[in-house]
Amino acid sequence: MTDQPADPSRAWWRTAIIDIAPGQIGVRGYPIEQLIGSISFPAMIWLLLRGELPSPAQAALLEAALVASVDHGPQAPSIAIARMSVTCGLPLNNAVASGVNSLGDVHGGAGQQCMEMYEAIAAACGERSLGEETDRGASLEEAVRDEVERASRRPNRLIPGFGHRFHPVDPRAVRLLAMVDQAARDGVVAGRFARIGRAVEAELERRKGRRIPMNIDGVTAVVFCELGFPPPLGRGLFVLSRAAGILAHAWEQSQQGERIKGPVPPEAGYTYTGVPRRDLPGQV
Amino acid sequence: MTDQPADPSRAWWRTAIIDIAPGQIGVRGYPIEQLIGSISFPAMIWLLLRGELPSPAQAALLEAALVASVDHGPQAPSIAIARMSVTCGLPLNNAVASGVNSLGDVHGGAGQQCMEMYEAIAAACGERSLGEETDRGASLEEAVRDEVERASRRPNRLIPGFGHRFHPVDPRAVRLLAMVDQAARDGVVAGRFARIGRAVEAELERRKGRRIPMNIDGVTAVVFCELGFPPPLGRGLFVLSRAAGILAHAWEQSQQGERIKGPVPPEAGYTYTGVPRRDLPGQV
Amino acid sequence: MTDQPADPSRAWWRTAIIDIAPGQIGVRGYPIEQLIGSISFPAMIWLLLRGELPSPAQAALLEAALVASVDHGPQAPSIAIARMSVTCGLPLNNAVASGVNSLGDVHGGAGQQCMEMYEAIAAACGERSLGEETDRGASLEEAVRDEVERASRRPNRLIPGFGHRFHPVDPRAVRLLAMVDQAARDGVVAGRFARIGRAVEAELERRKGRRIPMNIDGVTAVVFCELGFPPPLGRGLFVLSRAAGILAHAWEQSQQGERIKGPVPPEAGYTYTGVPRRDLPGQV
Amino acid sequence: MTDQPADPSRAWWRTAIIDIAPGQIGVRGYPIEQLIGSISFPAMIWLLLRGELPSPAQAALLEAALVASVDHGPQAPSIAIARMSVTCGLPLNNAVASGVNSLGDVHGGAGQQCMEMYEAIAAACGERSLGEETDRGASLEEAVRDEVERASRRPNRLIPGFGHRFHPVDPRAVRLLAMVDQAARDGVVAGRFARIGRAVEAELERRKGRRIPMNIDGVTAVVFCELGFPPPLGRGLFVLSRAAGILAHAWEQSQQGERIKGPVPPEAGYTYTGVPRRDLPGQV
Repeated sequence: MTDQPADPSRAWWRTAIIDIAPGQIGVRGYPIEQLIGSISFPAMIWLLLRGELPSPAQAALLEAALVASVDHGPQAPSIAIARMSVTCGLPLNNAVASGVNSLGDVHGGAGQQCMEMYEAIAAACGERSLGEETDRGASLEEAVRDEVERASRRPNRLIPGFGHRFHPVDPRAVRLLAMVDQAARDGVVAGRFARIGRAVEAELERRKGRRIPMNIDGVTAVVFCELGFPPPLGRGLFVLSRAAGILAHAWEQSQQGERIKGPVPPEAGYTYTGVPRRDLPGQV
Repeated sequence: MTDQPADPSRAWWRTAIIDIAPGQIGVRGYPIEQLIGSISFPAMIWLLLRGELPSPAQAALLEAALVASVDHGPQAPSIAIARMSVTCGLPLNNAVASGVNSLGDVHGGAGQQCMEMYEAIAAACGERSLGEETDRGASLEEAVRDEVERASRRPNRLIPGFGHRFHPVDPRAVRLLAMVDQAARDGVVAGRFARIGRAVEAELERRKGRRIPMNIDGVTAVVFCELGFPPPLGRGLFVLSRAAGILAHAWEQSQQGERIKGPVPPEAGYTYTGVPRRDLPGQV
Repeated sequence: MTDQPADPSRAWWRTAIIDIAPGQIGVRGYPIEQLIGSISFPAMIWLLLRGELPSPAQAALLEAALVASVDHGPQAPSIAIARMSVTCGLPLNNAVASGVNSLGDVHGGAGQQCMEMYEAIAAACGERSLGEETDRGASLEEAVRDEVERASRRPNRLIPGFGHRFHPVDPRAVRLLAMVDQAARDGVVAGRFARIGRAVEAELERRKGRRIPMNIDGVTAVVFCELGFPPPLGRGLFVLSRAAGILAHAWEQSQQGERIKGPVPPEAGYTYTGVPRRDLPGQV
Repeated sequence: MTDQPADPSRAWWRTAIIDIAPGQIGVRGYPIEQLIGSISFPAMIWLLLRGELPSPAQAALLEAALVASVDHGPQAPSIAIARMSVTCGLPLNNAVASGVNSLGDVHGGAGQQCMEMYEAIAAACGERSLGEETDRGASLEEAVRDEVERASRRPNRLIPGFGHRFHPVDPRAVRLLAMVDQAARDGVVAGRFARIGRAVEAELERRKGRRIPMNIDGVTAVVFCELGFPPPLGRGLFVLSRAAGILAHAWEQSQQGERIKGPVPPEAGYTYTGVPRRDLPGQV
């Protein structure tokens, strides 16, 4: 299918990802049979999204981020939605779909927004975010202060990627950040975004008088920025990771056998806040 | 469930829409058995969303808008997605879900954006948009010019609700706008947004040198604004309307019996724009 | 587009529902501008699905069923899923999609299964289900007994369309069944499926020693069978009805402002039933 | 959260997958910070689904299957649906959701059905499917013949997992089957299902007089059965794999910038097969 399209309708669908001919499947040019058994699943994800293979060290860092985000329990709406869907009779593909669907601007999009913030800071202070001495651009502290100020003026006043209503410190963030530091020491990544992320954390502590630690969105944003992914793919990669946890919970729920399971037990009920009972005009 | 919740978990879910007790279902206070057979489906939609019943004339105008938007053929992605989903084995609920899911910012959201534009114009020129003589606020022409200028600076430079790549004039828009005019003459609605919509159309013609007529999004935005719906419900009501067409196409497709039907015939294929075949390093 | 396709790819997508040409939209042959303002939304749904317009009395019965099923509160997974989705940042179209997606075999499919059971009974006893004297086919009682016996051997042993874990008597069922009876007296429908539904109810009471009353699925199945809809459209029509309630709850939730709302309050938590904490081999 | 629930509502949600406390996240008992950077993403998927870690060789076989199924081009409905959704304005999470949603009984479910067929064959011939000499059970050939006969009586007469309308031989199947053979020689798997899969292929050739080769569903079914996954997880694992390809195509489409892209070019159109234009009674 590399030839010129004879039929103009052929040009309606076009892709640089995959090239298929009878008996042949090429992914970014590589024959699929050479990729199977040779590259890891995270390396395949990278190849699909970026067009070239990652180095083993890059793939390992991506893999760590994918491992970290798989699940946060049935209290997470993404998980609860999938579990409830299964009790309504949905097979796994549909249950995973509804779970993944919920990873919107607030949930899955927080990582994307955090990446945008980090990149705005990096753009503002240029080489200085790499720790280099230069006269150009804002200092890291200034750039962080400006961006945090800007973010804090958003309607919900939350800084994406920082703070957690449950974990005082998120063990995933600590571990992943240590891996980024090691990768920076090994020359795998530049370490710029780890520096930026920590500077945001420091600025938040300065403003609030208490620590607002980097959460899983904030640290995976560091990883994905270091690896050169554009912000929308922060959300996309989170989708792939969380899909694994959603699948596991959907499967577990399917083994528990409940039917049409609501969010709370029937006896717990809910609060009705509307008008009292009344008759329809003309009915009584 | 109107009592105070004994259990704090009961307050976790709260609604003013529906009140349920054994043997009793109240929708916005009305016993469901009084509503069934007494009110129309559009009136029920209004009651659910707004809390009170519409007048018959208001319900009729909403009903006309719901009737108008049901379908635009299998070329519409929302319809094609549902039809393809059916050929992958999905039952109707899942196929409708994927179709409805696609009614995003560009597709279903255009009506919402158009309502926001109309409301910004109405806010800028106040009573003048009602045709009243007053010294307060901008003139309708000024307000429209400013908002169209603002909208035209958006990345895609499209004015939501105006222009159609297929219909020189959209027969749905002509008919619905005539109904709004009649409703304004009858005192059912104020007619402010019909006036605003036409002024936007005139301004676009002035700017472009040719007519960019109001499309289905632009005219249902007039209807929904006249009836007092907030902009996000413009998208919501479009979802309910288009769901009917999506269902019909999903059902028709299920009777045609194809399996895993792609967007184009297999022989039409697609254009591959990526790198040529290459070997994986270390594989050859 | 009524001409023969010049291009074979044109035959890839084909529909008898809608015919579009520049400035023209025909739904089942009728110009859309003639339908808008003339027919009700339920009549449009009927036209889309069936190809011809219903009589006003048929449309009224369909409308009553659509009004009846819109909502059953935030305890219903379909509603809770949409509400939780909104708190994750989803706009209304995506929230409605995930809610509708959940109306699977167990939830939205119960009506479909009930219609299949009714139709099997009707097929087994032929004209007798219309109350006619004939020698052909099984008696209504025999046919019902056989089908209920068959249904009760299903894995979950539930008879679709009968019994409710919350309502001793479902007020929607009482009202809708009375409407079917009236329609039968008026010659709008034959009344066959109301008779069959009641016979199933009687058989269940005989078997269980207590009343297992017809629920909303069982009674809408009566309505849809009387009106001649095939069983899969029982699920489809329920989707359209419930979509209205899902939309209303999604909208209400969007006004309540919570973020990433789980099914239960965070302090309520959940039960962990797995293995105790353990170290990863090679990690300690 | 391992304690007994003080509040009965806590028992409403229960899971053996994940245990969360402030500052602590345990997946199947393992602290998340020990898993991150230590286990591969496929090993995490296995742990989530199965409760214990795979051996490296088991993880490698699972990984190969996940790599193999990521994509089959924009002609696949799952991919086209996601791409069209993006052109309607959907962010990546919603586009992936609709793509994954389409992996239903016909598409994603074929692998599940193939696993069920393989398992039925294994159950029928017992140890003989392992190549052992025994008097118990049917011979492999008999068991295969019976199951293929049963499958061929299904409405669509297709044997799940065999045959491809495009590839005479699927390069993914050849490679994966070779990997299973190697794993069997290495004692990682028993090789029973590779033997069964090949026997099905041979039986199909005998029946049809031509080769109906194992496709990607048939070979991943071999892999998943060898690794001990239950059939529904065949569909689930395919969902995780294909989600990667869907994401890549959704992302690529978002860079191409089209709006509301239908399945075929507008000029290609579609065939209308319905009634000719007609007037609504009472309208003319």
